[in-house]
Amino acid sequence: MRVLIVLFLFIHSFLLQAQKDTTKLNVAIFLYPGVELLDFAGPLEVLANAKDMQVFTVAADTGKLYSMRKSLTILPDYNFKTVPKVDILVIPGAGESLMAAVNKPENIAWINSVYASSKMAMSICTGAAFFAKAGILDGKKATTHWGATHMLQEYAPKSTILDNARFVLDGKLLTTAGVSAGLDGALFLVNELRGSAEAQKIARAIEYDKWDPSAGFIVGKSIAKVSPKSHKVLDPICKMKLTSEDVFITKVYGNQSVSFCSAHCQEMYEADLKSKK
Amino acid sequence: MRVLIVLFLFIHSFLLQAQKDTTKLNVAIFLYPGVELLDFAGPLEVLANAKDMQVFTVAADTGKLYSMRKSLTILPDYNFKTVPKVDILVIPGAGESLMAAVNKPENIAWINSVYASSKMAMSICTGAAFFAKAGILDGKKATTHWGATHMLQEYAPKSTILDNARFVLDGKLLTTAGVSAGLDGALFLVNELRGSAEAQKIARAIEYDKWDPSAGFIVGKSIAKVSPKSHKVLDPICKMKLTSEDVFITKVYGNQSVSFCSAHCQEMYEADLKSKK
Repeated sequence: MRVLIVLFLFIHSFLLQAQKDTTKLNVAIFLYPGVELLDFAGPLEVLANAKDMQVFTVAADTGKLYSMRKSLTILPDYNFKTVPKVDILVIPGAGESLMAAVNKPENIAWINSVYASSKMAMSICTGAAFFAKAGILDGKKATTHWGATHMLQEYAPKSTILDNARFVLDGKLLTTAGVSAGLDGALFLVNELRGSAEAQKIARAIEYDKWDPSAGFIVGKSIAKVSPKSHKVLDPICKMKLTSEDVFITKVYGNQSVSFCSAHCQEMYEADLKSKK
Repeated sequence: MRVLIVLFLFIHSFLLQAQKDTTKLNVAIFLYPGVELLDFAGPLEVLANAKDMQVFTVAADTGKLYSMRKSLTILPDYNFKTVPKVDILVIPGAGESLMAAVNKPENIAWINSVYASSKMAMSICTGAAFFAKAGILDGKKATTHWGATHMLQEYAPKSTILDNARFVLDGKLLTTAGVSAGLDGALFLVNELRGSAEAQKIARAIEYDKWDPSAGFIVGKSIAKVSPKSHKVLDPICKMKLTSEDVFITKVYGNQSVSFCSAHCQEMYEADLKSKK
């Protein structure tokens, strides 16, 4: 029984950080229907473990919502009217439901107002589309999911979208690559605001030994370990850069070989060919 | 606008797997109050992306529950009475609320009945304590969070708890190291049940390039890349093995230098010393 009590207390004292400082920061995780689960769960895990950070979830309304693929049913803590002051804003990405949320003026208005007074703001994966829509990405360097860099570049022509960094910091704006890269971005955020010892401690608490603080691109600072990915061919529909690591479809049309990320893009390409005949 | 539609469809087709096969597997993620968020969100993300896996959450009852540190409010999909047949059982860990859930006979009874007819079962982090309590760990090799291996070994004396593998497979039982190791374990599970191309595809979809399929210990098969961690000193209270990577407390008592994982263990040690005087 003593072992069990010690087990309680050890994990309690190790993972649950005491909140003592007066510099406590409020972290808002923005949620919306269809949000990608790991996009926000990774940063939420990291930041809830960080010294003197109070993390909560916010959505346009506090009714229940589903994450992508209805994988989880969530009740947000606050809506736009009840949310406390936000020091750090975290915006996860999504798949098919992304643009419906990006195109809601109330979401963008809230993001713009919160961003203005925030200490730092962060997007994960395709969550960068919210910052693009809000005009926050203009003139900045940023990144997103490897399969969406080209599309984000078209959507945010005044920004420079990098496709070779796990996260990018430009001023107070931090953007990360896809899904699991939110872990790296959040650890980097802790590194910036609470120091590297705190970030390393959390990485160790969540056994994320794989964290590499130098895998990001910091605008105005040195660039380390950022090597461009080798791109083989371009999907003519979604413009995704297909590498040898991808499982993709290649088909010959006339005397030309064309590759697609999925059957869906292939169908769109063939429909396009048909309409031109 | 065309870019946006393609963005919808691309991410939709890439991340949302069509479910066509007749060999569809039901995956149950067991939840309980205080469950560690990333422990289950990582595997939930991976398995919901896998071909022909239907993932849902289950708890003793379907009322709302909080994850550890009240980081997220969740509504479980099913309770023990309404849950469909389970092919794959996933049990995440927790901190201070772990043993309250482990000591609930209805939880253990459900786990035992589901385990018997399951195809595979998996625990993440301290979730292994549920399998220990259920007797499922007896005679098996397993792992848990690096800070809890010693305690799990005391709690499950008939098992062999390994402290040098990211995940361990013994028969149909898969156990993983702490928190983020659930990602690696879930990808390995996909590798076993759906093949390595599918596992690699998901790792790439969630940009978890860091996944190393050989970082596990497979009982009865070859062991690759498993190197023991270098342990420096033992916390005399919680028995945690402190390495040079940890931020820990060292204090001299008489002519003896003693190290602790936290101020809490130090207090317990000093109270113990005092009572012996």
